[in-house]
Amino acid sequence: MDHEFYMKLALDLAGTAEGQTSPNPLVGAVCVKDGQIIGTGAHLKAGTPHAEVHALTMAGTQSVGADLYITLEPCAHIGKTPPCTDLIRKRGICRVFVASIDPNPSVNGKGIRLLQDAGIEVITGLLQEEAEQLNRAFFHFINYGKPYVTLKAATTLDGRLSTQTGDSKWITSNASRNDVHHLRHIHDAILVGVQTVLHDNPFLTTRLPHGGKNPIRIILDRYLRTPKTANIVTDGAVETIIFTLDSDKSRTVFFEHPFVSIERISETAPFLEEVLNHLARRGIMTLFVEGGSRVHSSFINAGLADELYLYMAPKLIGNGSSLFIDEKRNLMADSESLRLLDVRQIGEDVRLHARFLKEE
Amino acid sequence: MDHEFYMKLALDLAGTAEGQTSPNPLVGAVCVKDGQIIGTGAHLKAGTPHAEVHALTMAGTQSVGADLYITLEPCAHIGKTPPCTDLIRKRGICRVFVASIDPNPSVNGKGIRLLQDAGIEVITGLLQEEAEQLNRAFFHFINYGKPYVTLKAATTLDGRLSTQTGDSKWITSNASRNDVHHLRHIHDAILVGVQTVLHDNPFLTTRLPHGGKNPIRIILDRYLRTPKTANIVTDGAVETIIFTLDSDKSRTVFFEHPFVSIERISETAPFLEEVLNHLARRGIMTLFVEGGSRVHSSFINAGLADELYLYMAPKLIGNGSSLFIDEKRNLMADSESLRLLDVRQIGEDVRLHARFLKEE
Repeated sequence: MDHEFYMKLALDLAGTAEGQTSPNPLVGAVCVKDGQIIGTGAHLKAGTPHAEVHALTMAGTQSVGADLYITLEPCAHIGKTPPCTDLIRKRGICRVFVASIDPNPSVNGKGIRLLQDAGIEVITGLLQEEAEQLNRAFFHFINYGKPYVTLKAATTLDGRLSTQTGDSKWITSNASRNDVHHLRHIHDAILVGVQTVLHDNPFLTTRLPHGGKNPIRIILDRYLRTPKTANIVTDGAVETIIFTLDSDKSRTVFFEHPFVSIERISETAPFLEEVLNHLARRGIMTLFVEGGSRVHSSFINAGLADELYLYMAPKLIGNGSSLFIDEKRNLMADSESLRLLDVRQIGEDVRLHARFLKEE
Repeated sequence: MDHEFYMKLALDLAGTAEGQTSPNPLVGAVCVKDGQIIGTGAHLKAGTPHAEVHALTMAGTQSVGADLYITLEPCAHIGKTPPCTDLIRKRGICRVFVASIDPNPSVNGKGIRLLQDAGIEVITGLLQEEAEQLNRAFFHFINYGKPYVTLKAATTLDGRLSTQTGDSKWITSNASRNDVHHLRHIHDAILVGVQTVLHDNPFLTTRLPHGGKNPIRIILDRYLRTPKTANIVTDGAVETIIFTLDSDKSRTVFFEHPFVSIERISETAPFLEEVLNHLARRGIMTLFVEGGSRVHSSFINAGLADELYLYMAPKLIGNGSSLFIDEKRNLMADSESLRLLDVRQIGEDVRLHARFLKEE
């Protein structure tokens, strides 16, 4: 087995906790001695032990003289848990492979320097691209101070979200709709426009055969039109935050429910940016947008969309609303560019996963 | 090796001649004796030997007592070549596996009965579905008397063929455009509307790195607006047929060119049906439609579209024309249904291949 094999295993371990670690990154660790794996670990949840701790605990006294493969630079600071660099040194690890540097200002190379100062050999950059891809939401959150935004849409092959009369139940198959519930599970928050609340009265909860985590629910509702009887307001399944421009307190009294809060955005501020800043302050690292045409178009045109999951049913309808509306783009060269990450068939449908390409 | 292995090989051999055999079907044959392959063959071009002849020629005197795997029932009639049933009998084949029955009225079970009458054991139905899929255009042509129609479109992820100003150069990448040239190569004819001729002045020829067959070019041009200087009219690369309602002979004199013909359709006849009937009489079995919105919509709404190749570029544009326009479909349940056959990434793009589901 070569170094890439062990790091790939560490990356796979890290990925198993997708959606559980926020606002922490996904991290995996593998401890190897004499060509034998003696410890493995993954960070599972904020506040619980880091991946290195699990791997070194498993290795026990065998760790002296062993190699450690970690997908992210180890922490050098005392947070909710003691610094991992100390533990690695104390346990006698002689060589550490690190896939990606932790951009967090409290780490950002300091972890590697502390290991080197302790006489431990550190090799960086092994499967770095894969590690950065795995933690793209975390890196984005640290670098830009905003949640990583993933748009989701279900359309026909001719790009329609619904017919001209608003009918959209159902475009895609059961298999695709189940897949969406998995995406809800791995996101911290889910966002819709008030139109969706008025039109579909959704719960926006995660309904998977074996359970799942409900994302915090966000409604964009400039004029506070969310009905007080909406499922998303009354079901108490998980917190709901309504963002509005409306400052008339008398109208918000209806929402005095322990699970529902109203956040007012100043009319002079850029609405979406303010919503994302607020969510970031709440520690929301990943946002899943199940928008209609208007919500998706706002995110795209504000440059705030990071990824797209597009479910396409093998149907043609010939009229209705589109995923994206922008009358100002006259040439193909003006289009919003994405990069395909994955294409797969899901039941009778196809799912495209793509990343928005931004000028940095 | 089992029977399916040999029949699969015969199907693969048959498929190698895709686009070459029209109006004949694709056929492959494998001759096996004592677990050894002693002969293989494929039908390559109308008027040349059938697959069985090639396989039995290769087998030579070893064919006595051998098994023969054929993807299509052998012919029982004297066409451009003698009946294969005679040859199979004379060469001492003792057992014949047949994947699909030839729906051609002059065969249609007669080939199998003649073999059985000669004391040869015949096993039918082995990989029948695969064989019928392979020859779906031929079966369609025999059963309905019309070419098998494949639509091709290149769109953005939001389903746009072009921007609102008509710009579409280029939506997809080089890799996708090369792939389209392969599809041109394997079709007997290619069809566009006059709008495409006026807007793009295309050649519609097959331009592949190692050459390729040019499809016969068809223009739908009700009011004879094709310019006499259009590339498709003047280049002489391959025949061009213009279908029109116009009966003013003085306007057609411009097109008196050995490679260009004008066909008039009666105003009282269904235009597209008549075009397809005419092409069928010309022996055109497969038609590739590189339409815009109007041409594609006409084929779809007339129930005359059989397959769709949809190339999607990872772009969002927000305005422009769609692959399909139909203002009469108000509910998702009214949509045109297809079945996905294949999804793949081609360069930066994705290609969806789907079949229209028709009520039989």
